[in-house]
Amino acid sequence: MTTRNHCLALDAQDPLAPLRNQFALPDGVIYLDGNSLGARPVAALQRAQQVIAEEWGNGLIRSWNTAGWRDLSQRLGDRLARLIGADANEVVITDTTSINLFKVLSAALRVQALKAPQRRVIVSESSNFPTDLYIAEGLTEMLQQGYSLRLVDSPEELPRAIGEDTAVVMLTHVNYKTGYMHDMQAVTALTHECGALSLWDLAHSAGAVPVDLKQAGADYAIGCTYKYLNGGPGSQAFAWVSPALCDLVKQPLSGWFGHARQFDMEAQYRPSSGIARYLCGTQPITSLAMVECGLEIFEQTDMASLRRKSLALTDLFIELVEQRCAAHGLKLVTPREHDKRGSHVSFEHPEGYAVIQALIARGVIGDYREPRIMRFGFTPLYTRFSEVWDAVQTLGEILDEKTWAQPQFQIRHSVT
Amino acid sequence: MTTRNHCLALDAQDPLAPLRNQFALPDGVIYLDGNSLGARPVAALQRAQQVIAEEWGNGLIRSWNTAGWRDLSQRLGDRLARLIGADANEVVITDTTSINLFKVLSAALRVQALKAPQRRVIVSESSNFPTDLYIAEGLTEMLQQGYSLRLVDSPEELPRAIGEDTAVVMLTHVNYKTGYMHDMQAVTALTHECGALSLWDLAHSAGAVPVDLKQAGADYAIGCTYKYLNGGPGSQAFAWVSPALCDLVKQPLSGWFGHARQFDMEAQYRPSSGIARYLCGTQPITSLAMVECGLEIFEQTDMASLRRKSLALTDLFIELVEQRCAAHGLKLVTPREHDKRGSHVSFEHPEGYAVIQALIARGVIGDYREPRIMRFGFTPLYTRFSEVWDAVQTLGEILDEKTWAQPQFQIRHSVT
Repeated sequence: MTTRNHCLALDAQDPLAPLRNQFALPDGVIYLDGNSLGARPVAALQRAQQVIAEEWGNGLIRSWNTAGWRDLSQRLGDRLARLIGADANEVVITDTTSINLFKVLSAALRVQALKAPQRRVIVSESSNFPTDLYIAEGLTEMLQQGYSLRLVDSPEELPRAIGEDTAVVMLTHVNYKTGYMHDMQAVTALTHECGALSLWDLAHSAGAVPVDLKQAGADYAIGCTYKYLNGGPGSQAFAWVSPALCDLVKQPLSGWFGHARQFDMEAQYRPSSGIARYLCGTQPITSLAMVECGLEIFEQTDMASLRRKSLALTDLFIELVEQRCAAHGLKLVTPREHDKRGSHVSFEHPEGYAVIQALIARGVIGDYREPRIMRFGFTPLYTRFSEVWDAVQTLGEILDEKTWAQPQFQIRHSVT
Repeated sequence: MTTRNHCLALDAQDPLAPLRNQFALPDGVIYLDGNSLGARPVAALQRAQQVIAEEWGNGLIRSWNTAGWRDLSQRLGDRLARLIGADANEVVITDTTSINLFKVLSAALRVQALKAPQRRVIVSESSNFPTDLYIAEGLTEMLQQGYSLRLVDSPEELPRAIGEDTAVVMLTHVNYKTGYMHDMQAVTALTHECGALSLWDLAHSAGAVPVDLKQAGADYAIGCTYKYLNGGPGSQAFAWVSPALCDLVKQPLSGWFGHARQFDMEAQYRPSSGIARYLCGTQPITSLAMVECGLEIFEQTDMASLRRKSLALTDLFIELVEQRCAAHGLKLVTPREHDKRGSHVSFEHPEGYAVIQALIARGVIGDYREPRIMRFGFTPLYTRFSEVWDAVQTLGEILDEKTWAQPQFQIRHSVT
C-alpha cells in the first residue's frame, strides 16, 4: 500500500519539483485540470503589465516595431518548435485551434487536389474533439464536390477506413476524453502507405508528451497553448506544416499578415513563403505575449524528464484510485499501457458530474466530460506526488460518504 | 489666423475634455494615430491584472463560469451594439477582422445561393483595405464555380458596377487611406435596389463616426476594436448580422463556441440561433477582457458629441496645415465635405514617409500609407485642439527645415 509518506519522499527526490515555484497556484487547491487550462506562470503578470503599461501605453503604435509585436507569432513559434519535433521557422502561434485546423485541412485537400484529385475523404474518429469534427464538417460542406468526412469509432478501425479515396487522416494525438495516445509514427506511416496526408491535433500533446513530428514524417499539425503549455486563458493556438508541403498551396484564410509584403498594401494577395503564409489577421498581443512565459519554463527542462514524471504521476493515480476507491465501481477508461497514455487519466462513474462538483468544492479541481467521465490532468511542471495522494483520499471520502448526492452538486453547469 | 490661444480656449470649453483623464498617454507625445492603435484606457491595466492574477491564477478553470469568460464575446458585443446602430444580442466580439469577414462574406454568398444563385460577384473598391480584398480573393478561389471579385477605382463607379450578377457589395465605410466616408444609407439602398446584399467594414467607423446599421438597412458588418474603440493591441474584432438573415445559413468556420449546445460534445455541428453562430474557437481572454475598458468610456458620452468634436478637430487641422505649410505643396486627399469625411485626415507629400518619421522623432505620432500619404487620426475622446495646433507647427518646421532629408528618416520600416 503506497503511503502519503512515500509520496512525500517522491516529491523530495523529484528533480522537477523546483519548477513549481515558477507557477502561481492558489492555496488550498489541488489542480488536476492543467489539461484544460494550464496554471499561471508567475512571470505572466509582469509580462502583461509590461505589454500594457509600457508597450501599448507609452510605445503606442511604435511598439509594432520597437517591441517586436510584428513577428511575435513567429518568434514564439520558434521557441515552441522543439517541443513538437519541428525546427525554427516552421511554427506560428496565432488564431485559435479551430481556425488553424481550417487552414491546414484546407491546404491538405488542395495538395491532394493537385496530386490525387480523386482523394476527397477526410478520415477521423467519432471521439475526436468536437470542434475538430465541426470544422471538417464546415469545410466539406463549403467545398461540396464530393468532399466528405468518414468517422471511425475506434483506432483499430483506422486501417480499414483509410483507402484510395482518402485525402487526409485527421487525428488528435491524445484523446481529450480517454487519454488514449496514438502511435504517431505508425499511424503516419500507414497514412502515407495509403497515399493520404497526416494531420495531427496536438492539443493534449504539446508540453504533455514527447512529440517528434519530423521523425514521424507528419504533414500538418495544430495545437493549443492554453493547456499544458500554460499560455493563459484562450491563448493563441499553433500551426505547423511540413516544409516539403508548405509552399505548394495557399491556405484560404489569406489575411494581410500572411502576405509576402504586408505593408506594400497591394490589392492582390501574394503568400509569404514558409509558415508565415498561415498567419491571417492582427493578433491580440497581450494574450499572445504571455505565451512566452510558459515556454520559458519548458526551456529549463526537457520532454523526456517531463514524460518520466508524468507517467509516474498517472501510474500513481491509477494505483491509488483502484486501491482507495475499489468499492465504488469506477471504471478506468485511460489505457494502462504507457505507450498509449497521454498525461491525463479518466474514470467513468454514473454520477461523474456530481462527484467532480463535490471534488471542486473540496479544492480538488478535475473536470467532467460527457458521458460520465471524470478527467484528471497531471502536469509534471507543477503537480506533486503528495497532491495525487491527497486528491485520491478526497475522492474516496466523497464516494464513501456519497457527498455527490447533495443537491448543489447535481445542478449542471459546464466547464470548458 | 487661428492662434494657439484660440485652441487653448477651445480646449477649455470642450465638454469632452475630462474624458482624456481616463487614458494613459505618455508625456511629450501628441498622438494622432488612434485610427491605427487606440490609446490605453487607464482602467485596462487593472482589468488585465484582475484577469491574470485573480481569474486565471486563482480561479483557474472555474473562471469560465465564475468570471463570465464563457459569454464574454456576447456581453461585450451587447455593449458595443449601440455605437453602430445595432441591438443587444446582435453583435459578437471575437477573432480578427479578416476572419470575421470570411465568415460574413461566406454567409452572404450562401444566402444569395438560396435566393438568387446566378449572383456570384462581390463588388468592392480597389482602394479597400488590402486584407479585405485578400479575404474575398481567398474565398472566391476556394468556392470556384464562377465566384469572383469586381473592383471599382472610385465610389462614383459603384452604380455601374452593381448589377444582376452581384451577390454582395463589400465596402469599408471610411477609407483607411483617404478618410473618405461612404453614405451608408444611400449605398445600401442602391445595393438593395440591385438585389445585392450590403456588407460594411466599420474598422475606421466604430467609435469614430455615427453609424446606424439598422436604419441604413445594412445586412452584414464587421469591424475593429483596437482603433477608435481603444481595446488594446490587436484586440478582437466584431461581427454583426441583420437578424432577418442571421439564421438563414451557417457560416463555414463552424467551431465549438458557435454550437447550439457546446458542452454536449456532439459529433455533429448544430449552429446556435442568432449571432452566437458567428463564434468559432476559444478566445484569448486577457486581450478580450480589456475591450470592456474602452467601451466603458464611450458609455459616458454619445456619438453625436464625439462627431461634433471630431469634425472640429479635422477642420482645424486642415485649416492650420493649409495656412502654416502652404509653401510645401501638401495635397489634401481627405474630403472637405463633412458628410464625406471620417475622423482622420490625409495629406500627400512626395517625401511623406520621411516627413512622418521626422514627426515621430519630434513626438508627433501620425502614420504613413503607401503611396506618399501622411495620415493623422483625431480621436475626440483624448485629442486636444491645442495638440492639433502644436502638431501643425512641428510639421511646418520639419517642412521648412527639410528635416525629413536627414538619412535616419529615409530608412524604411513599416508601421501597422
